Amino acid sequence: MIRVAVDAMGGDKAPQAEIAGVSQALVSLPDDFIVQLVGRPEIIEAELARHPDVDRSRLEIHEAADVIGMGEKPLAAVRKKPHSSVVVGLTLQQQGRSDAFLSAGNTGATLAASTMLLGLHDGVERATVATVFPTGGEPVLVLDGGANLDCTAKELAGFAYLGTVYMRDILGRADPVVGLLNIGEEEEKGPAVVRDAHRLLKQSPRLRYAGNIEGRDILPGPQRRIHVDVIVCDGFVGNIVLKFYESAARVFVGLVMERAPDVFERPELRELVSVLDYSTYGGAPLLGVRGVSIICHGASSPNAIRNGIRVALQAVRAGLSAHTAAEFAHREPAAQS
Amino acid sequence: MIRVAVDAMGGDKAPQAEIAGVSQALVSLPDDFIVQLVGRPEIIEAELARHPDVDRSRLEIHEAADVIGMGEKPLAAVRKKPHSSVVVGLTLQQQGRSDAFLSAGNTGATLAASTMLLGLHDGVERATVATVFPTGGEPVLVLDGGANLDCTAKELAGFAYLGTVYMRDILGRADPVVGLLNIGEEEEKGPAVVRDAHRLLKQSPRLRYAGNIEGRDILPGPQRRIHVDVIVCDGFVGNIVLKFYESAARVFVGLVMERAPDVFERPELRELVSVLDYSTYGGAPLLGVRGVSIICHGASSPNAIRNGIRVALQAVRAGLSAHTAAEFAHREPAAQS
Repeated sequence: MIRVAVDAMGGDKAPQAEIAGVSQALVSLPDDFIVQLVGRPEIIEAELARHPDVDRSRLEIHEAADVIGMGEKPLAAVRKKPHSSVVVGLTLQQQGRSDAFLSAGNTGATLAASTMLLGLHDGVERATVATVFPTGGEPVLVLDGGANLDCTAKELAGFAYLGTVYMRDILGRADPVVGLLNIGEEEEKGPAVVRDAHRLLKQSPRLRYAGNIEGRDILPGPQRRIHVDVIVCDGFVGNIVLKFYESAARVFVGLVMERAPDVFERPELRELVSVLDYSTYGGAPLLGVRGVSIICHGASSPNAIRNGIRVALQAVRAGLSAHTAAEFAHREPAAQS
Repeated sequence: MIRVAVDAMGGDKAPQAEIAGVSQALVSLPDDFIVQLVGRPEIIEAELARHPDVDRSRLEIHEAADVIGMGEKPLAAVRKKPHSSVVVGLTLQQQGRSDAFLSAGNTGATLAASTMLLGLHDGVERATVATVFPTGGEPVLVLDGGANLDCTAKELAGFAYLGTVYMRDILGRADPVVGLLNIGEEEEKGPAVVRDAHRLLKQSPRLRYAGNIEGRDILPGPQRRIHVDVIVCDGFVGNIVLKFYESAARVFVGLVMERAPDVFERPELRELVSVLDYSTYGGAPLLGVRGVSIICHGASSPNAIRNGIRVALQAVRAGLSAHTAAEFAHREPAAQS
């Protein structure tokens, strides 16, 4: 039985979205797992009362008296609040009493607590959050998605390995191609740190590195010059592009609807809207940590939580953490220098 | 008569796109201007031979024996090639023999040569390129669009003033709202330079500063939390978001077409595709220089060149350069510190 700890207190819509998502997951996903709800028992129980059909035999409640708020400074909050749902949930995994953790709360706090409690694999400079961009065709993975704002060249190169393992284990691409997000293909383009990362990545023969890519190469389509599966950038750029993409898809649907309200009534186009819906992918695993820690969007719907649990289960079953360790153990010396 | 110098040699499709665009501009725009084609006379004449209807009385040819290539280092190239079309074209303006310059060639070279030959207005730290995002509704202006990769907080704050003047003079918005592109609304979000820029901008009462915005606030629509007209960011982020947006619109149209090929045959939707077409806006004025210098996309179509000329004429007629000087002269002491 896989044990997935779910932070019942984080997230903009906690605990409603979390409990509803857990309830959906228990019914709709393969039943080789249990959920460990972490938070204030009375709040959890009150919300569970609205889901009388939930299978309580596959549900544990782990008490956490405290919550880390969205606006709190991550590191300080993790240190100050040992009884927070994030710290309690990750401690279960540290002690071997849980296999995966999931939270839609303060991303920085989950990152900090995961790094402190689970630790990083040897050779990993920094844990990172990878985000899947739904594309209507093959998904692309962008990392970092917002956890690490300022990155060194070595950290960016490390993201390429982390993303490669994720693409193989979670998205089933045997031999993913990596691109470095920049403002032009040429060697000399971009800020110094990106130029240095490009040099490091070129010296990493175990990676399928395609070189610098531009904004127009992110999505598959005729405008793309280079096919890539994994896109490396710092978390500032990654987060802006990610949130922009989410909104651009919605804006575009809106513009079409304004002009031709009937168009999206057609089933083949309604399906497109759901294909581009982020909640399909749900959660983003924190890559590089010894274990499984899934970060969900603060505004996660129940469906996004359910899909986050699905990703957690996939990461456990595929052995994402062990594969990450192996990949870094085999990194070429050039990239480690 | 307004005199617009056009670099006939820059751009991926030079001189074809340039000459065709000039030919369109002469016919379709108000006739209070002449065009000064800058480049190798024999190449220009050969291309002009394909446009026998062009009004030669409104066309001058200014010889420039050299061209700065797309891959050349801007500053070095400008110094080494005094007879390049960029340097010759901008020298005309420096000497009072031209009112505006336009190039689809090496952006960095146009930026460097404009800064050196025209100079910056007092108080301007760095010239910047502003890019208009077509939205189907009110356009938004993003700056820097790729000219300045690493920016100081003071430079970012300066972009807010430059964008405000542009929005008023070229896009006709009387009192534009400025936002700073970041990964969250809160004060403490983002890298140090962005946090510092936020503090500077808050102390600038002459600006309508709305604060930090996120990627989802760039485009108008229901996903937006804050209305903004002018979006400030460094050129690395700006360029990536810009190129991503260009491609995302095309990808989205492609996805719809794949599923329902007939949809864009409807006139109200065909119009949408052209609304989201970048070439509608054509050129981006280099902001902060004493004069008018318009940067066009390397892949500019004749229509984009035509619209670049339209923007050049607007900038001259509106007095963009004088208004910029006035805005910086009136900047609050806080923002200048």
